[in-house]
Amino acid sequence: MQRYFIQKNITTTEFTLPPEIFHHAVNVMRNKVGAQFEIVGPDRLIKVIEVTSVQAETACGKIVNIVDVNPELPVKVTIVCGISKGDKTEKIVQKGTELGAGEFIFYNSSRSVAQWNVKKATKKVERLQKIAQNAAEQAHRVQVPVVKFCSSLSEVFENVQQSDYQLVAYEESAKQGEASQLSQVLSQIKERLEKESQRSIELTAFFGPEGGFTEAEIQLMLEHQIKACGLGPRIMRAETAPLYLLAALSFSLELG
Amino acid sequence: MQRYFIQKNITTTEFTLPPEIFHHAVNVMRNKVGAQFEIVGPDRLIKVIEVTSVQAETACGKIVNIVDVNPELPVKVTIVCGISKGDKTEKIVQKGTELGAGEFIFYNSSRSVAQWNVKKATKKVERLQKIAQNAAEQAHRVQVPVVKFCSSLSEVFENVQQSDYQLVAYEESAKQGEASQLSQVLSQIKERLEKESQRSIELTAFFGPEGGFTEAEIQLMLEHQIKACGLGPRIMRAETAPLYLLAALSFSLELG
Repeated sequence: MQRYFIQKNITTTEFTLPPEIFHHAVNVMRNKVGAQFEIVGPDRLIKVIEVTSVQAETACGKIVNIVDVNPELPVKVTIVCGISKGDKTEKIVQKGTELGAGEFIFYNSSRSVAQWNVKKATKKVERLQKIAQNAAEQAHRVQVPVVKFCSSLSEVFENVQQSDYQLVAYEESAKQGEASQLSQVLSQIKERLEKESQRSIELTAFFGPEGGFTEAEIQLMLEHQIKACGLGPRIMRAETAPLYLLAALSFSLELG
Repeated sequence: MQRYFIQKNITTTEFTLPPEIFHHAVNVMRNKVGAQFEIVGPDRLIKVIEVTSVQAETACGKIVNIVDVNPELPVKVTIVCGISKGDKTEKIVQKGTELGAGEFIFYNSSRSVAQWNVKKATKKVERLQKIAQNAAEQAHRVQVPVVKFCSSLSEVFENVQQSDYQLVAYEESAKQGEASQLSQVLSQIKERLEKESQRSIELTAFFGPEGGFTEAEIQLMLEHQIKACGLGPRIMRAETAPLYLLAALSFSLELG
């Protein structure tokens, strides 16, 4: 069933469709009276809507069901990525949203071939936020990840609160055979989730651009107690590594 | 270091560069005498080469080191995918190769929007094989995955030997909360790898196109003892699901 995210919760059983939904549900999808779709507001409840009337510029619907499903990862994952060339940031947001990421922060890293200035970043973030929303709708999530931009890795640290677990995917660690850090962190998280069911756990994972990190960037991360982890013995492209981490996390915490 | 795959093993210490390498290493990368790169042949050994002489149409090199590293997954994974629209098959091969897949088989599934005829399939497979080779070089693998085409799911079963473990990523199973099959299979594989270090283990994983499987296709797979598994509570696009499986497998068997 088609899913839409809305800005404000629907609190009455019958209501007028918000304009952002009206256009897509009626003009694009040609839904008529009796058609059903799902809406999700900031309350993260999945409400099944049936269209009750359609006019030229407006339409009404009623809530026919509220579905109690939580498709979100049990941990809030923030993906911090150095800006990569081409459409790689878009792929990271699209696929990362499918895989359950909670937030994306892109930063101009020392080795980013493409650097964003403030003007470009505003446009890019707007576009990436739209991609996140579409991907979250398709993935049937109840939450749209937030996309942010920082002009440097230092700015990331100035603006982002330290989370419970912080990892950096570092190629040199992988080359030296580091193969237990991610697994250790996920075991710890799993244990805490079993014990403290109400606790909200946050993990932040840092990734470089195509060219990798500079010594200074790695030093800065170590100063912030970020642990270097390997993601297996093969070299992954910049846009693949975040997806590996999210899939591993989902497998470890959601499957079996 | 740049890596090249070659068709025939180099068995002498000094040798003439094979033509497929000469063009890229000398004309494109402009390597001069003394430059180094890696070659990998069917023996899967990583040989570090130093260029010893360069002429207009030919160049010579010598082996200066043989690196003993195995970056391959401990299991041979075959990814069987319904053909998807656009460049999705290319993305599956590129990212799946980075993540360690051993073989790809694409088939015309009942709900494939784009179907390949024999002529189109020949061209496509050739292109996908090239993508696999480039991705394997970039990922620093010692093996290039093989890409194949079958005109239907039945043809897949006629041509492909049954492997030790066979899974199908089935959305309906995921919806019904199936969340233990993949983890069970990976635990069994892990146990066998610890016990029988010489044994080669094979896993085949089936995926549908965007539209998913038909009832008949699911029935056919069940008849072949393929087990349905969920890949978490979010809906993934056709090209994302194989990457999830490969990352989960690498995490489970290679990390910690």
